[in-house]
Amino acid sequence: MKVALVNGEPARSIALDDRGLHYGDGLFETLAVRSGAPVLLAPHLQRLERGCRALRLPAPEREVCERELRATAASLREGVLKLMLTRGSAGRGYRPPPNPQVTRIVLGYDPPAHPPQWRSHGIRARLCSTRLGRNPALAGIKHLNRLEQVLARAEWDDPKIAEGLMMDEDGRVVCATSANVFAVLGRELVTPPVAECGVAGVVRGVVMEVARETGLSVVERALLPSELADADEIMLSNSLIGVWRVRELEGRELSADNVRRRLLPGLAARGVSVEA
Amino acid sequence: MKVALVNGEPARSIALDDRGLHYGDGLFETLAVRSGAPVLLAPHLQRLERGCRALRLPAPEREVCERELRATAASLREGVLKLMLTRGSAGRGYRPPPNPQVTRIVLGYDPPAHPPQWRSHGIRARLCSTRLGRNPALAGIKHLNRLEQVLARAEWDDPKIAEGLMMDEDGRVVCATSANVFAVLGRELVTPPVAECGVAGVVRGVVMEVARETGLSVVERALLPSELADADEIMLSNSLIGVWRVRELEGRELSADNVRRRLLPGLAARGVSVEA
Repeated sequence: MKVALVNGEPARSIALDDRGLHYGDGLFETLAVRSGAPVLLAPHLQRLERGCRALRLPAPEREVCERELRATAASLREGVLKLMLTRGSAGRGYRPPPNPQVTRIVLGYDPPAHPPQWRSHGIRARLCSTRLGRNPALAGIKHLNRLEQVLARAEWDDPKIAEGLMMDEDGRVVCATSANVFAVLGRELVTPPVAECGVAGVVRGVVMEVARETGLSVVERALLPSELADADEIMLSNSLIGVWRVRELEGRELSADNVRRRLLPGLAARGVSVEA
Repeated sequence: MKVALVNGEPARSIALDDRGLHYGDGLFETLAVRSGAPVLLAPHLQRLERGCRALRLPAPEREVCERELRATAASLREGVLKLMLTRGSAGRGYRPPPNPQVTRIVLGYDPPAHPPQWRSHGIRARLCSTRLGRNPALAGIKHLNRLEQVLARAEWDDPKIAEGLMMDEDGRVVCATSANVFAVLGRELVTPPVAECGVAGVVRGVVMEVARETGLSVVERALLPSELADADEIMLSNSLIGVWRVRELEGRELSADNVRRRLLPGLAARGVSVEA
């Protein structure tokens, strides 16, 4: 951690009675920083505000978040921003205080240490056995209850495997532990809906937009592991990796890279980090 | 908060990079303190250890937790203990560090400020619309991902309503926002299983044990709201309330109190706080 601000002030700690710690009662955003600027800042702040509405958390003024994120990005130059909002300090009990003083945390980190060939040549992925519980009230937003992802990411140690796909309890693929998933099936680009579980990724939204502009048919629908075994291409997206090609899933090689390449110019034009 | 220890030392804050804050990556226990001693200490620590195994969190030595809880209870005399364990400080990413330094937090609070007639005459309860997602990997343990309970508890403001019952996504009653639920149906004492969602309450276990010793037939099975509407008695249990009688659920009065009264001597003998 190279930078840390709590409510705008440099800090190294938060209060022990913060509801973020006690209940995961809050939200976060993770942004890439390139050339001293946060990437896709506006849609990240929009999703944060949607999350605030879902959790009935008073949203801080957008200008305040923007100013702190931009200043931290400027000092990092290249790296990662994490913004967390929690429902602040409170007494015992689940009941939210009537007038919470939201805790606003801005953290700055070095860029992720992924091997460069993951970006250039694609990654290996696996299927996780940890399932995602369904909860429409929490689906789509980036809240602080992330134990399912922690347990899924704990399933493998092999450093050659970059990501793991997670299914819901009915065995439908939803996302990777920290990325959204796309599959090219025939003439369609398919990505699972995020209405019951999963996160509505900012880069997921950009990929869908660019794909439609490129003339692709983009479909949000349930995706079965058996369909992934037949997919021509599989891609993963998030704010830090941009879009990765999956070149191996559970031992099966995927060699095609046509659709992803078709998306590259549009993605790059929107600031999403990709490599041809 | 009257007492606060982090890893055995008086403290008011935890590090900003603690995984308890970032992911809810941890566990907690809430214990009643009476006459300077923690109530049902052994089963609480046993459940904590089960939770550690489920999350693959290195459990602290039981003696260390015991010593800190007993010392804090002695200083409180009457009140509430909360013990939290998190996977400690770490860098970015869901992946658990290979050798986490668990953060151990002991907090001491005043007794809950419930109206005394709730204990003596029973409580009013409601049905919540916020549902519980199913996840067998997390069910039963008392982990720090509690947004579902927070959203459910935010559904009502009426101070006359003490608790809200929560259902899973199929509409089966699982528990209250912070208590387990029992219903007397004919000759059976029914409580929902906690294998898919909900918490295996320590007092829930004591109630089941005492009920069996008293000759009651105790059944763990799914409980529908329509069955609650027909129940002779409904009870809620947790470590702070002991066992409450529900005297009104969604406007329906429940006047019988036979089974609960039959359990009182056995519960009291085990240290569970109850009132005749």
